Amino acid sequence: MTTLRALVLGCSLKSGAEESSSDLLGRQILDALADHDVDGELLRVADRNVKFGVSTDEGDGDGWPAVREKILAAQILVIATPIWLGQPSSVAKMVLERLDAELSETDARGRPSMYDKVAVVGVVGNEDGAHHVIAEVIQALNDVGFTIPAAGSAYWVGEALGKVDYKDAGPKPDTTGASVKDLAANTAHLARILADKPYAAG
Amino acid sequence: MTTLRALVLGCSLKSGAEESSSDLLGRQILDALADHDVDGELLRVADRNVKFGVSTDEGDGDGWPAVREKILAAQILVIATPIWLGQPSSVAKMVLERLDAELSETDARGRPSMYDKVAVVGVVGNEDGAHHVIAEVIQALNDVGFTIPAAGSAYWVGEALGKVDYKDAGPKPDTTGASVKDLAANTAHLARILADKPYAAG
Amino acid sequence: MTTLRALVLGCSLKSGAEESSSDLLGRQILDALADHDVDGELLRVADRNVKFGVSTDEGDGDGWPAVREKILAAQILVIATPIWLGQPSSVAKMVLERLDAELSETDARGRPSMYDKVAVVGVVGNEDGAHHVIAEVIQALNDVGFTIPAAGSAYWVGEALGKVDYKDAGPKPDTTGASVKDLAANTAHLARILADKPYAAG
Amino acid sequence: MTTLRALVLGCSLKSGAEESSSDLLGRQILDALADHDVDGELLRVADRNVKFGVSTDEGDGDGWPAVREKILAAQILVIATPIWLGQPSSVAKMVLERLDAELSETDARGRPSMYDKVAVVGVVGNEDGAHHVIAEVIQALNDVGFTIPAAGSAYWVGEALGKVDYKDAGPKPDTTGASVKDLAANTAHLARILADKPYAAG
Repeated sequence: MTTLRALVLGCSLKSGAEESSSDLLGRQILDALADHDVDGELLRVADRNVKFGVSTDEGDGDGWPAVREKILAAQILVIATPIWLGQPSSVAKMVLERLDAELSETDARGRPSMYDKVAVVGVVGNEDGAHHVIAEVIQALNDVGFTIPAAGSAYWVGEALGKVDYKDAGPKPDTTGASVKDLAANTAHLARILADKPYAAG
Repeated sequence: MTTLRALVLGCSLKSGAEESSSDLLGRQILDALADHDVDGELLRVADRNVKFGVSTDEGDGDGWPAVREKILAAQILVIATPIWLGQPSSVAKMVLERLDAELSETDARGRPSMYDKVAVVGVVGNEDGAHHVIAEVIQALNDVGFTIPAAGSAYWVGEALGKVDYKDAGPKPDTTGASVKDLAANTAHLARILADKPYAAG
Repeated sequence: MTTLRALVLGCSLKSGAEESSSDLLGRQILDALADHDVDGELLRVADRNVKFGVSTDEGDGDGWPAVREKILAAQILVIATPIWLGQPSSVAKMVLERLDAELSETDARGRPSMYDKVAVVGVVGNEDGAHHVIAEVIQALNDVGFTIPAAGSAYWVGEALGKVDYKDAGPKPDTTGASVKDLAANTAHLARILADKPYAAG
Repeated sequence: MTTLRALVLGCSLKSGAEESSSDLLGRQILDALADHDVDGELLRVADRNVKFGVSTDEGDGDGWPAVREKILAAQILVIATPIWLGQPSSVAKMVLERLDAELSETDARGRPSMYDKVAVVGVVGNEDGAHHVIAEVIQALNDVGFTIPAAGSAYWVGEALGKVDYKDAGPKPDTTGASVKDLAANTAHLARILADKPYAAG
């Protein structure tokens, strides 16, 4: 069995050393993927000086090209994002906009650059919004060429109008934890069979 | 102070005598509106033989024209809907589609038929999805001419992947209950000043 | 190469013999799938007396169980829906709600009943709304276990505030038509490799 | 009649002197508001060094506090945003996140800081996505306390999969232009009656 590569993009609004609940869920997804022979790393986007734009390189010290190299080198992309006002973080949206450029990029076989890659989503918030965040993120990723495995998301939110963060809410093995396990098994399986049998050239 | 009229459309998938959590929230909104001199009633849409369509009358026993009369007679419309898969119920969507017809209807002054009416949303679910349901419903209602008051929504959902209904979750005076009070005060105020000073003819 | 089976659910609000633009796009998807050795049929949901609900059988003449049998017999599900107010049709939402029941159903191997099936979306409207309809539909389908292939959607809408239907707009080979071809190639490929190498038991 | 104040936040991804289609629509909205005795200005957010965050001041040269002062001084807020992947720009999302802080801010009468202010949305894109962008933006703005007037949006997009920008598409007096006029009349009217008869203290 070939070892696969996963990249988790942590889309917290916070940079630096501050703890992030979305990073925590991202790391749990990485750990679960490791059980299926997938290596990987998490990268906090807010630390990388990524610029607003819809090209592969906005120049002027833009941090995106380095992130993009890591995406190209991976078979699996995980977007880990917090919820704000029931919606994905602006950092997650900035990432999706940068990936929009891939619609015009092709690989060595003339196919869109993200074909055969599998994408999934991890979402956390104090309260309500996860389903919609998942909808936004998978629609955009699917649009640019990623394949979405069965049950390709995992999330945690508290009761309506709650204020507790995922990192402080204690372990959730029976709900979010169970989703993470299913997500990891399906993601690794799908990425592996697509690596073995890629989509046809367009 | 003029007494105003409110209509709550309960958009549960269930008809008949079965208890509905969205009706419960709808009734709580009506009760809160009563404190601001607003009379009203709740009507369960699934009981009314409303047909799919985008006209004011689909014929053949269509229950919508009777519902529509009640909307026209009210200054306030409340959509009370459950969440399914993070989205508004199909019954709520059917109601919005029927209201789409109002874009072509005008009142005695030549204005769109829903102008000066105020609309708000109540949403309940076992878990996650309320913000997006609110977004869907208020976008559609605003598009057809309703005005949305400050903080024009109230909701309850349980923790992620929960299974408890609002009607069984016990009172929530500090979260959902507080929202219902603010919503009622703002809704009645806005409907009253718009009744007094209507939008201009187009 | 095994012949696969596709089912297109036409989610027009109209029943009976009236022409439907969403059916037209659905048939174009079926034709494109035929080039990849996929047989199939289109079924207009509004003709089938499907009841509101979230179970596999709502009883009392419910048409859903017969539709469900066809979904279970297919490897590919296509939701073809019109846009109303920028959102999926209430008929499409009714279908998604009925599929919500599948989260509790399992196959002979103990896996969720929709695992290994591939789902895609076709969307048409006079104007604006396709991306969001795609987001809503694939989020819900993915949630209940369907896998979404790269570029798993095709759509047509006219310019903002336009009034022309897809069936009257003339052929669109360079835009919608090209998407339909890519969608069909990717869908058939993914369904085939998942049929050959199914997801693991949970 | 009191002169009112409007602020348009241009949420293009581009900074500096580059022409922006969303700015163009924003200026058209300002011009239409001027016919109703509303003064105002447009500010390109990407030029202002606004930082990611959910507080009123993220420190360290954050440009938001200066933008926020202008919002507080206006009765009308216009979000003018492009569409990317069918969704609002990340710059627009950043603005909404910064406004999330206002849920904890109160005015001199103890009311949420944005009460009595009216918000509307202008959206442009090469193609599809406007309705959903409107939904996202008005849900978030309404959540933090803005009131949404009847028909509180205006948009332009080209035919599906088109590539022409609004600034190059030529005038659209009968569609987008007509919406802008209705929006301006309703916005000014509502802001004026709310300035005269504000919401009650909570």
